[in-house]
Amino acid sequence: MNETNYEIAIIGCGPAGLSAAINTKVRGKKLVLLGSEFCTPKLHKAPHVNNYLGFHSIGGEELRQKFLGHVKAMGIEILRSRVTGIIPQDDGFAIQARDKIFYARAVVLATGVSVAKLLPGEEEKLGLGVSYCATCDGGLYRNRTVAVLAYSPEGIEEANYLAGICRKVYLLPLCKGSQEMRSKIHEQVEVIADQKPLSIEGDNLVSALKLSHRTLEVEGVFIIRDAVLPDKLVPGLEIENGAVKINRDLSTNIPGLYAAGDNTGQPYQLAKAVGEGQVAALNAVKYIDNK
Amino acid sequence: MNETNYEIAIIGCGPAGLSAAINTKVRGKKLVLLGSEFCTPKLHKAPHVNNYLGFHSIGGEELRQKFLGHVKAMGIEILRSRVTGIIPQDDGFAIQARDKIFYARAVVLATGVSVAKLLPGEEEKLGLGVSYCATCDGGLYRNRTVAVLAYSPEGIEEANYLAGICRKVYLLPLCKGSQEMRSKIHEQVEVIADQKPLSIEGDNLVSALKLSHRTLEVEGVFIIRDAVLPDKLVPGLEIENGAVKINRDLSTNIPGLYAAGDNTGQPYQLAKAVGEGQVAALNAVKYIDNK
Repeated sequence: MNETNYEIAIIGCGPAGLSAAINTKVRGKKLVLLGSEFCTPKLHKAPHVNNYLGFHSIGGEELRQKFLGHVKAMGIEILRSRVTGIIPQDDGFAIQARDKIFYARAVVLATGVSVAKLLPGEEEKLGLGVSYCATCDGGLYRNRTVAVLAYSPEGIEEANYLAGICRKVYLLPLCKGSQEMRSKIHEQVEVIADQKPLSIEGDNLVSALKLSHRTLEVEGVFIIRDAVLPDKLVPGLEIENGAVKINRDLSTNIPGLYAAGDNTGQPYQLAKAVGEGQVAALNAVKYIDNK
Repeated sequence: MNETNYEIAIIGCGPAGLSAAINTKVRGKKLVLLGSEFCTPKLHKAPHVNNYLGFHSIGGEELRQKFLGHVKAMGIEILRSRVTGIIPQDDGFAIQARDKIFYARAVVLATGVSVAKLLPGEEEKLGLGVSYCATCDGGLYRNRTVAVLAYSPEGIEEANYLAGICRKVYLLPLCKGSQEMRSKIHEQVEVIADQKPLSIEGDNLVSALKLSHRTLEVEGVFIIRDAVLPDKLVPGLEIENGAVKINRDLSTNIPGLYAAGDNTGQPYQLAKAVGEGQVAALNAVKYIDNK
């Protein structure tokens, strides 16, 4: 068993993911916690929190530090690694991260909600020119022209990576903070600022990306967001009313896959997420133990 | 609107009830929090808690104090009042407590789990000689012979109350701490120690209480436990696998009645209870607002 094999993988480092992690650890399971660049920005921005039992009128950032401190004190490390696909296998799951594949017997999906709407054409062209991971799929676009939609700063790294493979790379910096990152952009990448992506076009395969003031002829569109929508992440995952469809024990329609937190639906609240992280983790542990 | 009318009543002062209370308060609703004599003894007894996100390796009693302090800091009072019945009405619920009736438009049931098993005959004879509340039903047993099963110290007060009404009162002290309370027992009450109740007998109405070494001829049996089973508390409440049957939004089969915490089923865990208390309260608020 090499280092990339785990009993339980937890995807997401918001309150649900952190709660799932401490509960998995308490039960003595080998876990990997895959988080984004900055855990739980929502909590970071909250001026004060009054409705998480035990802390009266605490600052959001102070509570965030307590959460991260708790996890750290229990010896749990957060691996910053954007997950782009979770593939059910015979005895567990293969988890595709930016530059590594992790294996786990059960998964807790705690990816939050993305406010992003899908672009017209995004869903239809997924796998037909649309990708969420340059390091995974970049090889398919050797000597071709592609565009990168960077809703997350990581999109800039992805564009740089593609510059070494593709004939031409367009980059749309669509996230905050991308201004400061300009100096890091590879000189072969053409930055297109102040334009919004409108739709992804093509008869079967992708042939163009329509922007507000021009159209780019491209064969690939890489869309880099902090959170990939759950059903895009896990092929075959059932969604209901825009949320992951879960059973009472927070299992999903895929055996061994559990969900917790905002991705299971409203209310989008801290205590709900922490509670669900616990329940999902304990049931994932039970699932493994019963196998 | 007199003082006993509320928008939301929360029954139980464990983690689920306390979390429901702070979330109701945050939403600006008029609430009553009806708790038992000692809130959350389970937490009080826990040597340390490691899996409630934000507190690493905290003592159970210390965490309990933080929970109670949070509720107090928000100006929420816990009324110590054992609830013995919740009756759905036209526009809400009548909540029968020991010596008062409260009215509320929605209810969050956070009563925990009782480890007590029902006595043989208890369910069949409820209302036919079996009662959970002396102050409510005592008048029906004027000049009759009754027995009080005191699984909670409050049973002693109930027996004293009945001594002023009934011809004869037997008391079985079945809870811890009852030894110290002996001096408080009314002299007309006959204490029967070191005997276990086995069953409640009678053709239609109650006629006897069988104990391990004798049988008492009684017309009434008062059973005083800290927690009354949810479906005994609320007539018509659906139960599934021994837990309150709840929907995804923690509503029950009775409109306006929500459940949270251990009474909704396993895992019996702190974070799960706190999260459910929040979700139940927010949905109870939504229920009222939509009416």
